[in-house]
Amino acid sequence: MKKVLILLLLVAAQGFSQTDDEKQIKAIYNTSLTKGKAYDWLNHLSNQIGGRLSGSVQAQQAVDYTKSQLDSLGLDRVWLQPVKVPKWVRGTPEFAYIETKPGLTNNVPVCALGGSVATPLGGIKANVVEVKGIEDLATLGRENIEGKIVFYNRPMDATLISTFQSYSGCVDQRYSGANEAGKYGAVGVIVRSMNLRLDDLPHTGSMSYGDTADYNRIPAAAISTNGAELLSTTLKLNPQVKFYFKQNCKQFDDVESFNVIGEIKGTTYPNEIMVVGGHLDSWDLGDGSHDDGAGCVQSMDVLRLIKESGYKPKRTIRVVLFMNEENGLRGGNKYAEVAKNKNENHVFALESDAGGFTPRGFSFDCSDANFERVESWKKLFEPYLIHMFVKGGGGADIGPLKNESMVLAGLRPDSQRYFDHHHAENDTFEHVNKRELELGAATMASLVYLFDKYGIVPPVKIKG
Amino acid sequence: MKKVLILLLLVAAQGFSQTDDEKQIKAIYNTSLTKGKAYDWLNHLSNQIGGRLSGSVQAQQAVDYTKSQLDSLGLDRVWLQPVKVPKWVRGTPEFAYIETKPGLTNNVPVCALGGSVATPLGGIKANVVEVKGIEDLATLGRENIEGKIVFYNRPMDATLISTFQSYSGCVDQRYSGANEAGKYGAVGVIVRSMNLRLDDLPHTGSMSYGDTADYNRIPAAAISTNGAELLSTTLKLNPQVKFYFKQNCKQFDDVESFNVIGEIKGTTYPNEIMVVGGHLDSWDLGDGSHDDGAGCVQSMDVLRLIKESGYKPKRTIRVVLFMNEENGLRGGNKYAEVAKNKNENHVFALESDAGGFTPRGFSFDCSDANFERVESWKKLFEPYLIHMFVKGGGGADIGPLKNESMVLAGLRPDSQRYFDHHHAENDTFEHVNKRELELGAATMASLVYLFDKYGIVPPVKIKG
Repeated sequence: MKKVLILLLLVAAQGFSQTDDEKQIKAIYNTSLTKGKAYDWLNHLSNQIGGRLSGSVQAQQAVDYTKSQLDSLGLDRVWLQPVKVPKWVRGTPEFAYIETKPGLTNNVPVCALGGSVATPLGGIKANVVEVKGIEDLATLGRENIEGKIVFYNRPMDATLISTFQSYSGCVDQRYSGANEAGKYGAVGVIVRSMNLRLDDLPHTGSMSYGDTADYNRIPAAAISTNGAELLSTTLKLNPQVKFYFKQNCKQFDDVESFNVIGEIKGTTYPNEIMVVGGHLDSWDLGDGSHDDGAGCVQSMDVLRLIKESGYKPKRTIRVVLFMNEENGLRGGNKYAEVAKNKNENHVFALESDAGGFTPRGFSFDCSDANFERVESWKKLFEPYLIHMFVKGGGGADIGPLKNESMVLAGLRPDSQRYFDHHHAENDTFEHVNKRELELGAATMASLVYLFDKYGIVPPVKIKG
Repeated sequence: MKKVLILLLLVAAQGFSQTDDEKQIKAIYNTSLTKGKAYDWLNHLSNQIGGRLSGSVQAQQAVDYTKSQLDSLGLDRVWLQPVKVPKWVRGTPEFAYIETKPGLTNNVPVCALGGSVATPLGGIKANVVEVKGIEDLATLGRENIEGKIVFYNRPMDATLISTFQSYSGCVDQRYSGANEAGKYGAVGVIVRSMNLRLDDLPHTGSMSYGDTADYNRIPAAAISTNGAELLSTTLKLNPQVKFYFKQNCKQFDDVESFNVIGEIKGTTYPNEIMVVGGHLDSWDLGDGSHDDGAGCVQSMDVLRLIKESGYKPKRTIRVVLFMNEENGLRGGNKYAEVAKNKNENHVFALESDAGGFTPRGFSFDCSDANFERVESWKKLFEPYLIHMFVKGGGGADIGPLKNESMVLAGLRPDSQRYFDHHHAENDTFEHVNKRELELGAATMASLVYLFDKYGIVPPVKIKG
C-alpha cells in the first residue's frame, strides 16, 4: 500500500512537472512566433551588411552589430574574444569557357574555391580529364593527367534523404581535389558544385593544399551544375576540348577578428556553462542568410526568449557567435582553448549551422544516458512537430569543446533546400521564411531550458 | 515449445514481408528522386499554361495537357469525365486607396474575392468600420454599419504550429463576411488576406452570398496584410477615413469542363478502386503551382512510380484530377455521383492539396481499425522522415466519396510556407522545390502500395 502511494505521488509529481514544462515551452514558442527578433536581426545582417568572409570589413561590421544587439538585451555580460583569422580575398569576378575548337567557345559560370591560389594573370587553358573522384587519379596515372585540368564531376547522390549525407559523399573532391591532382602534374582543377539542383550558380567552399609548397599549388574553381553537365557532354563528343579559366584570388596575412559572446549567469550553478551558437562569418557570394546568419540570430534569440519567458536559468547560458567556421575554424578552436585555459566547466553546447529551415530535431554527441534523457523529452516536442532525435555530430564550432561528460547537440532543420543555396550567390535573406527561422529558435531555446532545468547525466566514475 | 516455434515462424515471416516492403518503398523513392516526372509536368502546367480558373481557356488547356501525358504512360484506361462548372472572371485589375482627406490618398493592393459581384462602374467610396470577425456585426448593429465598408481584420493566429489551423480560424471572414455584412446595410467588404506574413500581395479565395438575392449582394475584396495594417492604423488616427475600391469581375453561365482520369486495372480485385488525386483548377493570380498543380503532378506520378517499380497492383488504382475545387467543388461532387450511379466500390482515396512542400505525413478519415493498420506501417516511413499520422479530413475533392468503410487520406506536407503563396500572385513554379515535390509523390505512392497490398480493414458487420 505504501509503495503504491509513493508511486502515485511520484506519478503526480511527474505529471505536475510535465505540465510546467509544457507551459514553459509553449511560452517560448509563442514569444518566438509573435515577438521573435531573429528575423529582424537577420534582415540587418543580410541586407545591411551582407557576405561576411573572415577578415573582411563586413565580418567586422557583423561583430560590431551583433555585439551592440546583445548589449541591448540586458544580459549579465557581453564581450568580444579576440582571434586571429585567415584573410582570403576573391578579387575580380572569375571567368571561364569551354573551347570546342579555336574561336568556338561557351562561357560557363565558375567561382574560385576558398583558399585557392590565382591562375596566372592570363588564365589557364588546357585539355580536360574528367574524373568521378580522387580515387580515379591513381588509375589514370600521371601520363593522363600531367598538363591537364582535372574535372571532378561526381554528383551528389539524389537518393539520400539527408542532403548532408549526399554532401559528405562528394565534398572531398572540393576540399582535397586540387592538392591530390597537383601531385599528378595537373595544372588546375574544376569541381562540380555541391548542389543537388541543375542550375547556373557556382558554389564556393573551403579547400586545402595540405603541406604542399606554395609553388606546387594549382588553382581550383567550382563550376555550376549546368556548366558541369555541359562540360561533361562536350568532352564525350570531343575529348580534345579545352577549358579556360581565370581567377585572381589571394591569401593575405592573418588579421585580428573576434568571437562575439554574451551570457546570462546561472542562479544555482553559475560555473556550469551551456553554450548556444552559430558562426558569424560566411562566404562572400551571397549574404550568408542560411549559412549561418540564421544560426547566429537564432542563438541570440535563445537567450532573449528564455529571459522573456521569466525562467531564471540555474546554469550559465552563453551565446557564442564564432568567427571563421568556413575557412579555418579559428573561432571554435580559440573559444575551446580559452575555456580550457580558464578551467571553465562546459556541460552543454548546441550549434545551429544547417540553415534556417523548419526544425525537425537534433543530433546528439553524448553518452547513452544523456541520449535517454533527451528521448524522455520527446513528448514535449511533439506539438511542435519536432521528431528527429538522433546520434551524430553537434557542429564544427562546438566540436573542439568536446569532452567525455558534456552534451554536444546540433539543430537539424529540414535539409531539402539547403544545398540549393549553400555557399552560392542565392544564399540570401528572401530565401529564409520567418516562421521557419522562429520555430528553430524556439526549438533550441526549449532544449536549452530542459537541459538547464534537469541538468546532464554525469558520467559514471569507475573506481580505480 | 510448439508455441515458441510458431511465434518464431511468425516473426520470421513478418521480417521477410517487412524487408519486401522496405525494398519496394525504397525503389519508389529512388525512382521519384532520380527519374521523377512531377517537376517537369508542373513546369509545363505552371509556365506554359498558368493559372487555371474553372471555365477558363487555361483550365481547358490543362485538361488537354494532363490527359495527353496520362495517355503516354501506358495506363489501362484514360478518360475525361464531363462536369459543368461555374465561370467567374476577374476582369481588369482592381484598384483601391485609403483617402485620409479629400485629395490625400494612399493606394493599397486589393483583389476581388472569387464569386464577388463588381462594384458600380465608378467604384465605391465610403467610411470604414473595422471588425475582428462576423460576430462583431451584431454588437455594432445596423446603425454603425449601414452605408459603410466593413473591414474584416482578424489576423491568422501565428502561435498555431499548423498554419491550416490558423487559416480555419479566419477564413469565415472571407467566405461569409460579405453576405453577413450585407444584412446590416454595408455597401462593401474588405478582408485582410489569409496570409501569416506581412507583405503587399492580396490573396483571393472563394466566398458565398448564400441565398441572398442578386440585388442585395455587396462586393468583396481582399487587401494585402501590409495594406490591412495601414488601413487599421489610419483608422485609429482618424475614424473618418474613407476607402475606395473598384472591381469589375463577373459571373457567367456555367460551362462544360472535365475531370481527367486514368487507371491501372487491379489484377486480383479490379472492382476495388483506390483513388489518388488533386485539383486541376487553380486561382487566376499566380500559376497555381502549390495549389494544386503540385497535387496533380504528384498524383499522376504515383501511378507511374508504381508501374516503374514493377509492382502489379491487386486493386484498381485511379488518378483523378478534379476540376473546380476552388469555387464550386463540382468535379469532386460529379466524380462521387458517377461512382454511386455506377455502383463502383471505392475502398481508398488519397488527396494532395496542401502544397508541394516536404511531406511530413498523412491525415486519415477512417475507422480505428484502419488507423491502427496505418500506424503499424510507421517504421516503413521513418527512413523518409515521414512521422505525422493523424486523424483528420482527407481533402475537399475526395470528401463526397466518403462512406463508412473506406479510407480517406490527405498528404500533410510541412505547412509553414503554404499561406505565403496560397491564392496569391506568388503561387508560382520557382517556389516549388523539386526534391520536396518528389518526396511527396513517393510518400503518396508508398501509402497506395501498402493499402493495395494489405487492403483495408472491412467494417465489423453487426448481426441484426
